[in-house]
Amino acid sequence: MSVDAESATRPAEPRFSQRRHWAGRQVISYLMQQGVENPQVLSLAAGLVDPQTLPVEETQSAVQRLLADEDRARRALQYGTTPGAERLRRLLLEHVARLEDCSVDDLGVDADQLVLTNGSQQLLSLVGEILLDPGDICLIAAPTYFVFLGTLNGLGARTISVATDEDGMQPEALEAKLEELEAEGLLDRVKLVYLVSYYENPSGTTLAEERRRAVVDIVRRWSRRQRMFILEDAAYRELRYDGPLLPSVWSFDMHRDSVILAQTFSKSFSPGLRVGYGILPRELVRPVCDRKGNEDFGSANFNQQLIATVLDEGLYGEHVEKLCASYRSKRDRMLEAAERFFADIPGVRWIQAHGGLYIWMTLPEGVDTGFEGTLFKRAAQTEQVMYVPGELFFAGDEAEIPRHHMRLSFGVQDEAGIEEGMRRLAAAVRAVV
Amino acid sequence: MSVDAESATRPAEPRFSQRRHWAGRQVISYLMQQGVENPQVLSLAAGLVDPQTLPVEETQSAVQRLLADEDRARRALQYGTTPGAERLRRLLLEHVARLEDCSVDDLGVDADQLVLTNGSQQLLSLVGEILLDPGDICLIAAPTYFVFLGTLNGLGARTISVATDEDGMQPEALEAKLEELEAEGLLDRVKLVYLVSYYENPSGTTLAEERRRAVVDIVRRWSRRQRMFILEDAAYRELRYDGPLLPSVWSFDMHRDSVILAQTFSKSFSPGLRVGYGILPRELVRPVCDRKGNEDFGSANFNQQLIATVLDEGLYGEHVEKLCASYRSKRDRMLEAAERFFADIPGVRWIQAHGGLYIWMTLPEGVDTGFEGTLFKRAAQTEQVMYVPGELFFAGDEAEIPRHHMRLSFGVQDEAGIEEGMRRLAAAVRAVV
Repeated sequence: MSVDAESATRPAEPRFSQRRHWAGRQVISYLMQQGVENPQVLSLAAGLVDPQTLPVEETQSAVQRLLADEDRARRALQYGTTPGAERLRRLLLEHVARLEDCSVDDLGVDADQLVLTNGSQQLLSLVGEILLDPGDICLIAAPTYFVFLGTLNGLGARTISVATDEDGMQPEALEAKLEELEAEGLLDRVKLVYLVSYYENPSGTTLAEERRRAVVDIVRRWSRRQRMFILEDAAYRELRYDGPLLPSVWSFDMHRDSVILAQTFSKSFSPGLRVGYGILPRELVRPVCDRKGNEDFGSANFNQQLIATVLDEGLYGEHVEKLCASYRSKRDRMLEAAERFFADIPGVRWIQAHGGLYIWMTLPEGVDTGFEGTLFKRAAQTEQVMYVPGELFFAGDEAEIPRHHMRLSFGVQDEAGIEEGMRRLAAAVRAVV
Repeated sequence: MSVDAESATRPAEPRFSQRRHWAGRQVISYLMQQGVENPQVLSLAAGLVDPQTLPVEETQSAVQRLLADEDRARRALQYGTTPGAERLRRLLLEHVARLEDCSVDDLGVDADQLVLTNGSQQLLSLVGEILLDPGDICLIAAPTYFVFLGTLNGLGARTISVATDEDGMQPEALEAKLEELEAEGLLDRVKLVYLVSYYENPSGTTLAEERRRAVVDIVRRWSRRQRMFILEDAAYRELRYDGPLLPSVWSFDMHRDSVILAQTFSKSFSPGLRVGYGILPRELVRPVCDRKGNEDFGSANFNQQLIATVLDEGLYGEHVEKLCASYRSKRDRMLEAAERFFADIPGVRWIQAHGGLYIWMTLPEGVDTGFEGTLFKRAAQTEQVMYVPGELFFAGDEAEIPRHHMRLSFGVQDEAGIEEGMRRLAAAVRAVV
């Protein structure tokens, strides 16, 4: 075929939607690729859960039970519904009631307000979809969960940071930001406040109890022209090692009309099953389900029935206890290693997380922890250790993003790996400080 | 609390996104609700698969195998990646090569171009997301799969019907429609042609082989200013009972740059596992994965490993054979019952489907089969039988939508139920004709 004949039949380039252009390359993919390409590197970066404590026996036992009865098995292998299996939704109300230390009745919601999703990430994404038009505003902590920042960008939404400290988002800063936005005529674009309320990814911080009450109060008071919602991401809630046992932000929303509570079994049981859920204010249920209907008309029914069986058979509570004991010990090991290897490097500090999977470390302000900085290269190439640059967890003006933080995970490595990783990382930091 | 004090703390109404307003109530939910509320009604409406042939033993055996090895088990319970498990993607290339009756090399794509999704519905939705801005056009057959019509509406896209007969979409009508759109200055809004290529839901028709070649040729020729894609939904491909064994539309896209092939294990194995997949032109892989990253950053890894094990252990082929034997017999029973009960009602005709789950029946033009018409009420309330009104499967100008068709499914009922359902339905039709 001649070049002309070929070019005559070659179709033009694709023209993508506006949304495609908003969706940046997933940083998470870049990190995973780095991990795959450098298998000898000790990763304190991976946000995976500990493979050693994944519930192989519990899953085996639950699947056996689920498939033992022919009728039940067939129902599990059949299509489910868009909001998810009624059986699991009822069990989850009981589960949330246990977490909130109240009765199911006192929750003040019914099973219809609980929607099952493909991990809690899909719930976060669906809430964004139904509320946010391009240019609408979501207020966030700084730092906060970067995958959701990507989701917000993908919607063309604006993310605005609110000052945050070791007790989470500062209520007075939230109030000041709303005043500022009102003065700019932007108040009616504020639809959402996103809060990772327990052991935040990346900072490990927990929103203090009095702040939980305060942010609900502020959001309700400022919902004058349109309702603002708090999207409470409680993904790490059940990975608690010490510190206070706090009720959710959601529990302070006495009218159950302003807070969306997102939880998941990815951290506390198995991320491979991708069962997450949300409890929604009544008005959001149909919009979320309609949107989910368009996207996938329901998550895997089999997995929902499996988790229901895990809960029903009492396999869950004991597993979470074991899990927390193991993570607690790994968290301790990381904090001890931080003390041992970093305490004498001037200007280095870190947060004592009471749960979750992460330790947030701050270096002297001049040190650039980014992918292109000298530290990341020194760490990955010379010392063979990897972390996640802190800059990924901030939104807003590039020039104002702090670049001297690192997220360190104790999720994947065993205790020896954590210790060795911290030793290597300290060597890299010493070399560049 | 006084009314004033209460209203002072009551937040304003939610203000939803534009998208929320585009997403209509899911018809599928309405039908399911009807089914739940009228359990005594014999449903020829449900689009579920036959519970009797769901693979309980095969799943048991595959899970046992998957979880027997501790390392493999842990990998299955861990997070996967956004495009899905490499192991399954490689097996699926072999699977698709078998279906296309060629070697994996001759497929002309690699495993990176295969993306695993939450059912094939999520693949359809993702393709819509990355290509369609509000007002962009997707050309469709008439009738076609109503869930995807809902997805397109949810994006604010325009759906335009192309004349369709018992051999599927007419290529000359497609060409004429493109000419018409060009004359109207709308050609650059045409991004997608959606084709359910095998045993379409609802009509049971299959796109004829010469038309497969023709539509690829037309779409490539008309991709002058921007690439148009064909989205081939081959969900029912493996439920073949007789008739010709056709290569996919995708196989006629020699350059692998213009057709997206969507397939699923929901019909041929288990919808409760929600494992679907798409083979994408290279330029669409990253956009689809970026978008999927925003929505859920990957479907359930456990389910992907489970399907991989089913394929690997040779459990799949035999199951599909059994399945097709059972559905073939049910299809025959429905066609026999149609002959017995409807042949003497003037103006009634139906399509002899060679696969899939549906028989499309046409009544005399004056009969309104819609939810609000006399036939639906007569059928559901007096005769206790339910079908899906044909009008749901058409898009475009309300006034031009034909209202005298019915979709009848032989998926869920056993043979006696099919016969009895058809008898009842004929009685209802006789009463209103």
